[in-house]
Amino acid sequence: RAFSCGVAMAKSKFEYVRNFETDDTCLKNCYIVVRLDGRNFHKFSEQHGFLKPNDKRALGLMARSAESVMDNMEDVCVAYGQSDEFSFVFKRSTNLFKRRASKLMTHVTSQFSSSFVFYWAEYFTEQPLLYPPSFDGRVVLYPSNRNLRDYLSWRQADCHINNLYNTVFWALVQKGGLSTSQAEERLRGTVAGDKNEMLFSEFNINYNSEPQQYRKGTTLIWNMAEEVVTKKVKPANENEKEVHVTRTRRKIAAHHCDIIGEQFWEEHSGVLESD
Amino acid sequence: RAFSCGVAMAKSKFEYVRNFETDDTCLKNCYIVVRLDGRNFHKFSEQHGFLKPNDKRALGLMARSAESVMDNMEDVCVAYGQSDEFSFVFKRSTNLFKRRASKLMTHVTSQFSSSFVFYWAEYFTEQPLLYPPSFDGRVVLYPSNRNLRDYLSWRQADCHINNLYNTVFWALVQKGGLSTSQAEERLRGTVAGDKNEMLFSEFNINYNSEPQQYRKGTTLIWNMAEEVVTKKVKPANENEKEVHVTRTRRKIAAHHCDIIGEQFWEEHSGVLESD
Amino acid sequence: RAFSCGVAMAKSKFEYVRNFETDDTCLKNCYIVVRLDGRNFHKFSEQHGFLKPNDKRALGLMARSAESVMDNMEDVCVAYGQSDEFSFVFKRSTNLFKRRASKLMTHVTSQFSSSFVFYWAEYFTEQPLLYPPSFDGRVVLYPSNRNLRDYLSWRQADCHINNLYNTVFWALVQKGGLSTSQAEERLRGTVAGDKNEMLFSEFNINYNSEPQQYRKGTTLIWNMAEEVVTKKVKPANENEKEVHVTRTRRKIAAHHCDIIGEQFWEEHSGVLESD
Amino acid sequence: RAFSCGVAMAKSKFEYVRNFETDDTCLKNCYIVVRLDGRNFHKFSEQHGFLKPNDKRALGLMARSAESVMDNMEDVCVAYGQSDEFSFVFKRSTNLFKRRASKLMTHVTSQFSSSFVFYWAEYFTEQPLLYPPSFDGRVVLYPSNRNLRDYLSWRQADCHINNLYNTVFWALVQKGGLSTSQAEERLRGTVAGDKNEMLFSEFNINYNSEPQQYRKGTTLIWNMAEEVVTKKVKPANENEKEVHVTRTRRKIAAHHCDIIGEQFWEEHSGVLESD
Repeated sequence: RAFSCGVAMAKSKFEYVRNFETDDTCLKNCYIVVRLDGRNFHKFSEQHGFLKPNDKRALGLMARSAESVMDNMEDVCVAYGQSDEFSFVFKRSTNLFKRRASKLMTHVTSQFSSSFVFYWAEYFTEQPLLYPPSFDGRVVLYPSNRNLRDYLSWRQADCHINNLYNTVFWALVQKGGLSTSQAEERLRGTVAGDKNEMLFSEFNINYNSEPQQYRKGTTLIWNMAEEVVTKKVKPANENEKEVHVTRTRRKIAAHHCDIIGEQFWEEHSGVLESD
Repeated sequence: RAFSCGVAMAKSKFEYVRNFETDDTCLKNCYIVVRLDGRNFHKFSEQHGFLKPNDKRALGLMARSAESVMDNMEDVCVAYGQSDEFSFVFKRSTNLFKRRASKLMTHVTSQFSSSFVFYWAEYFTEQPLLYPPSFDGRVVLYPSNRNLRDYLSWRQADCHINNLYNTVFWALVQKGGLSTSQAEERLRGTVAGDKNEMLFSEFNINYNSEPQQYRKGTTLIWNMAEEVVTKKVKPANENEKEVHVTRTRRKIAAHHCDIIGEQFWEEHSGVLESD
Repeated sequence: RAFSCGVAMAKSKFEYVRNFETDDTCLKNCYIVVRLDGRNFHKFSEQHGFLKPNDKRALGLMARSAESVMDNMEDVCVAYGQSDEFSFVFKRSTNLFKRRASKLMTHVTSQFSSSFVFYWAEYFTEQPLLYPPSFDGRVVLYPSNRNLRDYLSWRQADCHINNLYNTVFWALVQKGGLSTSQAEERLRGTVAGDKNEMLFSEFNINYNSEPQQYRKGTTLIWNMAEEVVTKKVKPANENEKEVHVTRTRRKIAAHHCDIIGEQFWEEHSGVLESD
Repeated sequence: RAFSCGVAMAKSKFEYVRNFETDDTCLKNCYIVVRLDGRNFHKFSEQHGFLKPNDKRALGLMARSAESVMDNMEDVCVAYGQSDEFSFVFKRSTNLFKRRASKLMTHVTSQFSSSFVFYWAEYFTEQPLLYPPSFDGRVVLYPSNRNLRDYLSWRQADCHINNLYNTVFWALVQKGGLSTSQAEERLRGTVAGDKNEMLFSEFNINYNSEPQQYRKGTTLIWNMAEEVVTKKVKPANENEKEVHVTRTRRKIAAHHCDIIGEQFWEEHSGVLESD
């Protein structure tokens, strides 16, 4: 029993180690972006039979996991995903976790990862998950709306460039009968115009008619949805009766449109706070 | 098509946003500790019917998830867990992810979280997982072996103090018929000796005979295990034959012993590097 | 001689210690403010016979030292000083010292400190400097023009509040015959209106007629000054002749006006970059 | 007067900008090194007629300024300087300025810079200071005694290499009649042995007989010096009398010896704390 006392005292003797923790508070009045990337997803996608160039199940699961993150952190004002990456933008005035970078990035990464496994079977009904996948995350700050929008534009431009490449690449392989290294060779040095042309003349594919989800990625924002619910009330001196009450509820809405131009931001002007 | 060109060019125009990323390299020659904590696990454990004061399934699942982290990151030289937390210690000379704090903490958190869901059903055979849980993580650096050992001692002393409290608390509730608030009241102001005494005189429980896993937590280290494998070889001008080859393989070993004193570290002297 | 070789080789053996330096690059597109404060200037001002409540020589020397900083770092777009402190604002697009915080703050502090000693005798003609004084510095980032202007407003409001207090305090001591502790007592709990009233009714001082330099501090900005210089030129096939050339030169201009309101910023709209 | 009230209230409205300051506490239990370097000292030394390859006055002034830093910050356990640089090592347990990096580096830089100007005339009796010089500083942390000693060894090896080069270079120019570019050409590709040989055979200089101050730099540490002071005391019922009291006082001692090997550290074993 003396021993136990000893440990209790020992704890306070050891507690000085807490002071080795450092503060990583994010600068105020900046957008906080947490971006996740799948680790070794090239291999993961092969082992799980992802369809090429795009697997609708995988994109759906990524979006579902991102929604799970947003549901748990309402200060995410917009999220954008493509391929095996997803970015979560916290509003510049957020005070979640006192703006501590490590808390923000690990909580996002954790929620996303556990959701990815949890919802796997809803999207991959025939393909079991072979092992737990991993994502890495980082935090980046953007001081102005212009910088934040340029960040999102950068990711969407990246989506476009990769998707155009992959669309032609897999057409050459799957329909053109080329080996993967032949397809790579064929595409070396080509610009966007060449690739569009190849798709059209050789495979009769109009790239701009491909699904927007593949070409534009997935943008998640909060929508104010009006909901009519029925409530039973019993006013004094009256019989109980049913009344219809309109409630405003935040709901996540997914978009597959251009977010580089002005239109999206004008139509959803509440997403960003002014500088 | 001109549009696509535009986007390609746009990408390079937006790419300046990469320069807003900051460097978070950990100081060299320090131990890097990543500690995870379950978020809202009080509620989570109630919703999933965890046994009190200790749920062997939950502790097993935590340890299994931690092993999954170690299997993916061999530079973790020791890991220690108790309750809903787990600490991973990277050796001071590690160069994994170029010692970038965000990469280290998010990768650990992600692997742990996805493993927790992935292996859930192996441990909770009767209890389905109701929603994806979340863990948060942090990075702390320790410059000396003394500091690192004091950190681990701090966590193990914490384990002891909490477990002793919980053991008495739940004995009072489950066997003594007290309500939770009555039990709380009973324990207010008691020291370790009082609690040991209550356990013994009222419930005939010798605290020091409780399972070590509960009292000491779980320490994971790498063991060098010798393995004899059988290989078929065919020397030139000879028939194929079977040979026995001894290979050394790293395997994770779990311990439930004291790590505050010297003995554990003397017996496993290879775990820490010298100052 | 072998020894010397040894040292040369030794150097490369030791050079690994460079990797312990960490990166402290300031976030892009933010204003970088370096603020200096005199260390123990209460004692320093007494030992050097500073006049109370304001010493014109000391304020002049502070401003001269600040100009020396600006002359050496043209990316300072505005500087503001009062009492024993001075703030230097680097334009948000600066790339000086690659935006490394330690370089920026130590260079500013060093130039200011050496200038303070160097120019001392120009301002304190009768009072020798008794020992080398010291200033400490810090870096703060501001992401928006609003934040930056609020920072400067904060410092100017601080100047006002302190100067009003000091003006009454020293009037009570120097003209009212109170001891310093009696004066302190008298002022406890008074608001600005009370202090204005005391100055006016007891000492016939209208606070708003006090020198602006004392009430508003010193704001330094760059002015574009046109300068006409005479040059000798010799066109081909002509005699040498003198021509007048107008050159634009940046010069530092000192202001002692309000910088909280809009007027100053409208009149000097080039000082800040747009968000 | 209402206006003044307004400013007082305004101040609290603006005070939120304080929250943009970030914490830069240095990791505990690490040595904190602040290194200063002269800015543009090549030009500065030419403009002020520094003797080549070494100017005793300049080295003396550097050391005097460093002593001024140590006198103001007793937690500096050792300082080392050579050429236009000086490193200050704070003991690993220091809590000065709560270990805030910006405070430590700016205070050191400021004190050094103002001292350099303040003491200039004591060392450069014939040469006036033409303008205020500037130094930049940085902070580096070292977790172990080995790392710290390797840091100091790195600087002393650097001193040796540069001084050997400069000694030959200026011998070739000043005594050998070469131009500076001819001397540079002559030295290209030579190793330490070649340079020693050139010094000896062409100029009859034995490099190892050059002053240690030039070859080894300046190391400053604290010495405990016993001092006998005379005090007048008047015991009750006795006449006043003089007594001799021995006091221990810390004094700075300068060394120009090797600090790469063990000897210096064994002779001054109190300088570093154990790991």
